[in-house]
Amino acid sequence: MPTDEHCLRPPVLRAGDTVMLVSPSGPTRPERVARGIELLTGWGLRPVLAPNAYARQGYLAGGDELRAADLNTAFADPEVRGVICTRGGYGAQRVVDLIDMAAVRRDPKVVAGFSDITALQFALWRGARLAGVHGPGAAWLDDRTPLRSAESLHAALMTTGPVTVEAVREEETYPVRVPGRAEGRLLGGNLCLITASIGTPDMPDLTGAVLLIEEVQEPPYKVDRMLTHLRRCGALAGVAGVAVGQFTECADGWDTTIVDVLAERLGDLGVPVLGGLPIGHGVGQLTVPVGTPAVLDATAGTLTTSPAVR
Amino acid sequence: MPTDEHCLRPPVLRAGDTVMLVSPSGPTRPERVARGIELLTGWGLRPVLAPNAYARQGYLAGGDELRAADLNTAFADPEVRGVICTRGGYGAQRVVDLIDMAAVRRDPKVVAGFSDITALQFALWRGARLAGVHGPGAAWLDDRTPLRSAESLHAALMTTGPVTVEAVREEETYPVRVPGRAEGRLLGGNLCLITASIGTPDMPDLTGAVLLIEEVQEPPYKVDRMLTHLRRCGALAGVAGVAVGQFTECADGWDTTIVDVLAERLGDLGVPVLGGLPIGHGVGQLTVPVGTPAVLDATAGTLTTSPAVR
Repeated sequence: MPTDEHCLRPPVLRAGDTVMLVSPSGPTRPERVARGIELLTGWGLRPVLAPNAYARQGYLAGGDELRAADLNTAFADPEVRGVICTRGGYGAQRVVDLIDMAAVRRDPKVVAGFSDITALQFALWRGARLAGVHGPGAAWLDDRTPLRSAESLHAALMTTGPVTVEAVREEETYPVRVPGRAEGRLLGGNLCLITASIGTPDMPDLTGAVLLIEEVQEPPYKVDRMLTHLRRCGALAGVAGVAVGQFTECADGWDTTIVDVLAERLGDLGVPVLGGLPIGHGVGQLTVPVGTPAVLDATAGTLTTSPAVR
Repeated sequence: MPTDEHCLRPPVLRAGDTVMLVSPSGPTRPERVARGIELLTGWGLRPVLAPNAYARQGYLAGGDELRAADLNTAFADPEVRGVICTRGGYGAQRVVDLIDMAAVRRDPKVVAGFSDITALQFALWRGARLAGVHGPGAAWLDDRTPLRSAESLHAALMTTGPVTVEAVREEETYPVRVPGRAEGRLLGGNLCLITASIGTPDMPDLTGAVLLIEEVQEPPYKVDRMLTHLRRCGALAGVAGVAVGQFTECADGWDTTIVDVLAERLGDLGVPVLGGLPIGHGVGQLTVPVGTPAVLDATAGTLTTSPAVR
């Protein structure tokens, strides 16, 4: 593994640590988070709810002030050692500019989530170079995130070894591949949120990075539009490689497959591309650190990432 | 009307002029364009088909080379006096960098279309400061674009007077209003394509401009995301006003209305905002010039725009 200390690694979570469940994006309900709380408790963690974790205002988990206040509460409270987002949805970009980044830098904590939480992780990357954990939220459904998903999140939060994810044939994006080996920092997450960061200060410099992308319920032409946007704004010009996760329910009912779109828009970048990674909104979602050095071996079919925690 | 010659106004279309029907985005079929050809012919124009107007490759009207070649054929041919796009869909951004802008500047022609064609009009604005016509394509459906829509397109293409559009109570976005009067160049079109231009050279400088937005089939949270994106990238910081067209089938099945989202995300910009304009994907779509000076009178409820043609 390449070493790179130009990121802020929060301390590994240990049994007895308190973690705060926060909803920076869409609303959730107690019954949807019950299984997540059970899992976290089973690992010896002490999950506590942010004051407004169950707030609700249309498609948002309460107003911007409430969601920002919850994030800042979690970052400021020295008892809280980790921030577990309940779910994505939409709304993080409305509040990320309200985060007290000095508090984040003063007492770095691991922040876990994905989907809309990509926007939060991008903001924390910009404001604090904080490595993050791209994995399922506390709104846990065993059908979608079975035992191997739980074990993967546990490993990323509570152990300090590198994380390896293998491309698997069962994944729809498995045929997307440009062989080769790339080293670089793993940055990215949900494609919609990556593109919705273009032109804002949160858009990370992808030069030399391994870009991670995944998506859910966006038709092929919209995936094309987002990748074309990334190409046209120059974001992909210096990328070292692309790690392609799950593109869940993206091609249903379309003649064009998602493999067609991904292969066409990524295949000519001149860098390794590895599809088939079980990372995203599909069944069996695995967890990966983001912000830390990674090796994308598109010949062997593996993505290996340095831990987010130390 | 304010005067401003910092744009390239193509000649007005006259009876006998040849116009070329081009498909820079999604595919169409002869039967869908038949009524459009009939209308154009009825106005005394001579519609001709671009060589690949009916080409088809998945969600694209043929490969990028074909669509770009058709555009360049239309711009290069001195017989062709106007370019009428058949429809939007998706795909213009894949080809706009292949347009021969020297040819566009050498012999400016009016380009009509909307939706995905916003991307083409942005590129022509960047490359040639070419004023355009934001109106229905040749794939014409009388149910959606009745007589008043045809008359409006005719006026924008074949007359040189200013174009006035009134906000109407029947439009879903009618309650979106911040009174006041703004003068500025009218720029914009489809919200998705505007946001998909952020960070690319095609994104116009909206400082002092009246921004036109319309959308179709995007749920409220995605409209929120797009407007939040425009806010966060700084694009709205210097805008003179916002002209809000139709947001068609955007809020079906959601608790949050599209008026809520638009009012919340635009209402605090400190500039006039006028909703209820029948411009976009809804029934009775009217045509407006883009790239030319406009007056947005959000007190009186009118948008008046200088002609795109001279």
